[in-house]
Amino acid sequence: MGSIKKVAILGTGNVAWHLSFALFKAGIEIVQVFGRNEERAKKYAQRVLAEPISHYNNLVEDADAYLLCINDTNIAEVASYLKNVGGIVAHTSGSVPMEVLKDNSDYGVFYPLQTFKDSEVNFENVPILCEGNSGPTEAALMSLAFELSQRVYSITSAQRQKLHVAAVIANNFTNFLFAKAFALCQENNIPFEILHPLIVETARKATLGNPADYQTGPAVRHDEATIVKHLELLEDPALRELYASITKNIQAE
Amino acid sequence: MGSIKKVAILGTGNVAWHLSFALFKAGIEIVQVFGRNEERAKKYAQRVLAEPISHYNNLVEDADAYLLCINDTNIAEVASYLKNVGGIVAHTSGSVPMEVLKDNSDYGVFYPLQTFKDSEVNFENVPILCEGNSGPTEAALMSLAFELSQRVYSITSAQRQKLHVAAVIANNFTNFLFAKAFALCQENNIPFEILHPLIVETARKATLGNPADYQTGPAVRHDEATIVKHLELLEDPALRELYASITKNIQAE
Repeated sequence: MGSIKKVAILGTGNVAWHLSFALFKAGIEIVQVFGRNEERAKKYAQRVLAEPISHYNNLVEDADAYLLCINDTNIAEVASYLKNVGGIVAHTSGSVPMEVLKDNSDYGVFYPLQTFKDSEVNFENVPILCEGNSGPTEAALMSLAFELSQRVYSITSAQRQKLHVAAVIANNFTNFLFAKAFALCQENNIPFEILHPLIVETARKATLGNPADYQTGPAVRHDEATIVKHLELLEDPALRELYASITKNIQAE
Repeated sequence: MGSIKKVAILGTGNVAWHLSFALFKAGIEIVQVFGRNEERAKKYAQRVLAEPISHYNNLVEDADAYLLCINDTNIAEVASYLKNVGGIVAHTSGSVPMEVLKDNSDYGVFYPLQTFKDSEVNFENVPILCEGNSGPTEAALMSLAFELSQRVYSITSAQRQKLHVAAVIANNFTNFLFAKAFALCQENNIPFEILHPLIVETARKATLGNPADYQTGPAVRHDEATIVKHLELLEDPALRELYASITKNIQAE
């Protein structure tokens, strides 16, 4: 199996948007962009000089890879339309096992782990987790990944699923807490920018080792007076309950 | 009231360690460092060319400011030993109202908002929240703060207490989640460094506006299949419960 030079992108969501453009900029030919919505397919295809298509029977059969950038629930179905293609069929999901693609001949996973909402994504720093149903398939996907990023890893489906949970905790859940902190500031006419350095420093420290070693605050030092005061200060019952629950969890360590 | 040039530091914890040195480097004279433990007082005092003391009756009376870098619960008691001093008595706590110092003549708050555990602290970027019992006292504390940082704010005790809750949520709680993500990776032989870019990017985005606008993940898109799968993958019952609880909270927005 040679290296991947011609890619078809299936999907018109955030991952398709950023990944197709990153591949295009890296000199990979994007032959087609598939989207059920014709206008979206056209918009996505234009940016990477690809052919927009909206029907599976228009798919080229000679792309080196078909990257499914679609909802988890649609992966098996879309893959079933790709049984006759010659190239590698790979999905880009964090939580779907590679084996849902097992009816294809060469298949794998090409999972870029980053939060893709809005803003420009610099892929150089985005970890890409690869898996293939054979050594050559995995190697081909990893080579493609190295065209975009310095951070390419081979991990199993089981590991990737655990990693996805960890990513949800480290990204979605912390972002939710940042949003709660923002709301608290806004309600009390406190500029949220006061918290910016703390937020950035917390993240920086988390990259230095085991974050548990940097745990500070009233919970870990069992400062019950402050905890009680904080619970009194929180007017939103749901947030109060969450405060109590996370505090309990920190203290249980 | 003139500007603060001579400071006595009371306390030998993290805040005392970093704040005394930052003031020292900024050219403020640290006259004394008070610590009940003589060895610690000596260690802290030496670094900033100050006199170490361990008894309140040895405190100089002519410092311009006495900064209480001590546990919240001790502030009122220690302040009571400072009734006869000439300078401003200020505590450095996020959660204690200024009025616990009301038996002193000039008093206020000088609260540096950052996580001080270990690592070197660059105060330039540390927000310092000031409050004073009079305009001149507040101005003097703010001037002192500007010697260390570009980010100096005047906020009330009520605001500071809310801010402290927000800081606990944005720092301690998110760090706990990072620690959980770390543990999940470690248990599954996944290099935690894979998550570093995501963690740093999540923090960066939180500084761009309202983090709620950047919320992604299975919870906010009501992807119940992934949520159920994640709950199954989590072996620790406490973490599973926390996952469910934060997910519920995100979905309730």
